[in-house]
Amino acid sequence: MTDLTALLKAVTFNADGLVPAIAQQEGTGEVLMMAWMNREALAETVVTGQVCYWSRSRQRLWRKGERSGQVQRLKALRLDCDGDTLLLVVDQTGVACHTGRRSCFYRTWREGALATILEVEADPETLYRP
Amino acid sequence: MTDLTALLKAVTFNADGLVPAIAQQEGTGEVLMMAWMNREALAETVVTGQVCYWSRSRQRLWRKGERSGQVQRLKALRLDCDGDTLLLVVDQTGVACHTGRRSCFYRTWREGALATILEVEADPETLYRP
Repeated sequence: MTDLTALLKAVTFNADGLVPAIAQQEGTGEVLMMAWMNREALAETVVTGQVCYWSRSRQRLWRKGERSGQVQRLKALRLDCDGDTLLLVVDQTGVACHTGRRSCFYRTWREGALATILEVEADPETLYRP
Repeated sequence: MTDLTALLKAVTFNADGLVPAIAQQEGTGEVLMMAWMNREALAETVVTGQVCYWSRSRQRLWRKGERSGQVQRLKALRLDCDGDTLLLVVDQTGVACHTGRRSCFYRTWREGALATILEVEADPETLYRP
C-alpha cells in the first residue's frame, strides 16, 4: 500500500480544503484543464491512477470521465515550490472539455475579442446522454 | 487603445477578485508556474505584454521579474470554458521559480516520496540581491 502521508503533508490545501490541479497531456504538453482536489480526491487519484477531482458545483468527488468515458490516466504528479498547486501529467482519453473540445482552453484573446481556436471533436449530446 | 471590456467581462473572478493564471512556455509547452491575477494585473498584462500577477502574500501587483529580471513576455492569453482560469503562453526569460529552477513544478511524487527533478539554474542569492 502506498503511504501518502508525505504527499498530503507537503500539499497546502486552501481554507476550503482544496488545491488547484492542472492537467497536462503527456508527450504533447497540451494544457487540458484546471480543476480542484480535496485530500480524498488526491489520495484516490494516486492510489487508483485514475484522476479524480472535487466538484465545487456539485460538492462531491468527480471521477473524471465517470459519465463521458473521457478519463485521465495519471502518468506523473508534480508539486510546485509553495506546495499549493499540483501539475498532473495525464493521458487523456478523447476530450477533456465538456464542450467536446480536447482542451478547456479553447478561447484566445485576439485583437480585442475572444476567438475560438479548437474545434469540437466529440458531440456533448453523445458524451453525456442519459 | 485595446478595449478590454469583453475580456474582463468573460473572466469570472473569485470572491477575492482573483483568477488563477497558468504560465506555459511557448514552444516547449513546459508548465512554468501558477499564480493569481486581479482585474488590474490582467489589464496591465494585456496592455504591456509583460506578465503581471497579484501577489496574495504581499497584497500588491507583482510584475513578474521586477527584482530578478526573470520576466515573462505574453505571447497568447487563453481562457477556459468556465472563464475561471487563464492560460498564459509566455516567453520566460531565465527561470520562473524563485528557487532558481526553470519551473516551479520541480518535485514529483515517486515511490512514496517527493523527488526533485529539476536542477537549480540560477543562484537565488544573485537573482534577489538587494
